[in-house]
Amino acid sequence: MRATVMPRAHEVRIANVPDAAIEQPADAVIRITRACICGSDLWPYNGGPNVEGQRMGHEAIGVVEEVGSDVRTIRRGQVVIMPFVDSDGTCLFCEEGLPAACVHRNFFGNGSGLDGAQAEALRIPLADGTLYPIDVGEDDALMPSLLTLSDVMGTGHHAAVTARVRPGGTVAVVGDGAVGICGVLAARRLGAEQIIILGRHPERIALAREFGATDVVSERGEEAIERVRELTGGLGVQSVLVCVGTAQAMETAMGAVRPGGAVGRVGVPHYEVINGAQPMFYNNVMVGGGPAPTRAYIPDLLPDVLEGRIEPGRVFDRTVGLDEVPDGYRAMNDREALKVLIRP
Amino acid sequence: MRATVMPRAHEVRIANVPDAAIEQPADAVIRITRACICGSDLWPYNGGPNVEGQRMGHEAIGVVEEVGSDVRTIRRGQVVIMPFVDSDGTCLFCEEGLPAACVHRNFFGNGSGLDGAQAEALRIPLADGTLYPIDVGEDDALMPSLLTLSDVMGTGHHAAVTARVRPGGTVAVVGDGAVGICGVLAARRLGAEQIIILGRHPERIALAREFGATDVVSERGEEAIERVRELTGGLGVQSVLVCVGTAQAMETAMGAVRPGGAVGRVGVPHYEVINGAQPMFYNNVMVGGGPAPTRAYIPDLLPDVLEGRIEPGRVFDRTVGLDEVPDGYRAMNDREALKVLIRP
Repeated sequence: MRATVMPRAHEVRIANVPDAAIEQPADAVIRITRACICGSDLWPYNGGPNVEGQRMGHEAIGVVEEVGSDVRTIRRGQVVIMPFVDSDGTCLFCEEGLPAACVHRNFFGNGSGLDGAQAEALRIPLADGTLYPIDVGEDDALMPSLLTLSDVMGTGHHAAVTARVRPGGTVAVVGDGAVGICGVLAARRLGAEQIIILGRHPERIALAREFGATDVVSERGEEAIERVRELTGGLGVQSVLVCVGTAQAMETAMGAVRPGGAVGRVGVPHYEVINGAQPMFYNNVMVGGGPAPTRAYIPDLLPDVLEGRIEPGRVFDRTVGLDEVPDGYRAMNDREALKVLIRP
Repeated sequence: MRATVMPRAHEVRIANVPDAAIEQPADAVIRITRACICGSDLWPYNGGPNVEGQRMGHEAIGVVEEVGSDVRTIRRGQVVIMPFVDSDGTCLFCEEGLPAACVHRNFFGNGSGLDGAQAEALRIPLADGTLYPIDVGEDDALMPSLLTLSDVMGTGHHAAVTARVRPGGTVAVVGDGAVGICGVLAARRLGAEQIIILGRHPERIALAREFGATDVVSERGEEAIERVRELTGGLGVQSVLVCVGTAQAMETAMGAVRPGGAVGRVGVPHYEVINGAQPMFYNNVMVGGGPAPTRAYIPDLLPDVLEGRIEPGRVFDRTVGLDEVPDGYRAMNDREALKVLIRP
């Protein structure tokens, strides 16, 4: 079968690889019907770690082709959402709603242990715990939005949840990538009244506004903090969603959050320490977040997608076949595309 | 009148100072009936900042002697609890239950703007918002426990709240000072099932056990983390209460907390950064806490004190008059006394 591999930085190839197959009794194999490229795929693309012919992709919807002998609830032919990690569904973290911390957790793609989803098919360990079956046809018009429940919308929602977005609340979203824009949508969905997006890309900002952003701050660094404070009566916001993994994004967040507020991080951090331990303390600021438990969020978000109340799939502004995936990476890296959907 | 001042490190004096008096229309003057010495008073005592003849003390109960012309609810003769900061009671932070972040906040004592409570009397700005009247006699037997609502019990409770202690939960408390021991009591009160105290002072540990600690870890550093993990099936705890302000306490906390867990800091931090931004992220660990909104916690904690369900006043193991306050500092600094109560 064909799959996306990254032999080295700035190089993406569609390669012939061994067919996905059942290896363990709890496995399933899915035929990928939709996948996509994530902002985090661009880190190795730009020279980050793990670049050694790794298989790429960790967001997908597929159709179950085969199940192992221990699989009990997942059945051949089901259309399923695949979260970006596997999880057993039974450990205490899974039971507490944090499958992203499952004791058997592995990440899909990006050299993290499991194969990648930007491929024709994929082996899914712990299929019963990992996959989420949905009762729609494999080419349903809602597919782009359903696909976002695999990662990007669940991740934006996690940023909003860990930043304790509340009805009537004030929110800043750092980052106008697809996660940030989904963060805006999540904050709006949770009832925030003021949602300030920090970004400057005109089309992304336009979509963020449609998703519920009430204010836009295009400045950076100290000036961005000043602007957020101006927009909030000098106080700062109750919730900051950090949808970019840089130290600068965290500095902006810590400057923009108000006393008693919360910072929810979902951008994979490319920094080692959180600065400002003292002002964070004196202002009773909370910092939370991490890899989103997207599997646990699906029951909550799915009805809103199915009934058309949210359309997170609008973050996809380009669709490619498997052969065009390398150009999809290039387009996202050049900020020419916001997020690329793949139909293998 | 007489008041405690600290001319320089390791020196505490009882000095004659101008009588406390109304300066602003919203002020009250209270005669201090009970005060105490805080672990944080030992930082300047040991050479920390702000040592220039500062007035000391920020925890007290007193009797209202005089009120300014704008004071509406506080009346002469009332017995009142004085939280360690003043607050107007009307700003949006006060309304949200975070008077410790009041826009008019000032700290009492320790060179922080307001005079100190280890004195015969004290001017209280914003008296209506700051003081909490209680309907007991000024020499009631419950005074030690009531006094802890000024700071130490409210602070232990804040650690437990920000560490999200829940019924049936697992908790570690870093620090066997009076705050840590009150943290144990708070965790127990919130329904935690396993409460591990990290400390080694036999009498303090004994009190912690009486307050609800189920396990004791006397090791330090990496060994302490190992022990906490052993005691929790290898997982770590859901909640860590950091009741010491050192970087090492935070490192222990970050090693002892389990995925999806929370760290509540109440020890005044003597470090600039929070290390481990990446493991904290990958484990979805939350870090919160800060100066406790003790004023806001009084309505919640007071009935338990008045009805004898909790006895936080047992942290006081020595009582002194004003003249003996310097020796009280010495005794606490030598870890000879856990917490010293003052009857001016």
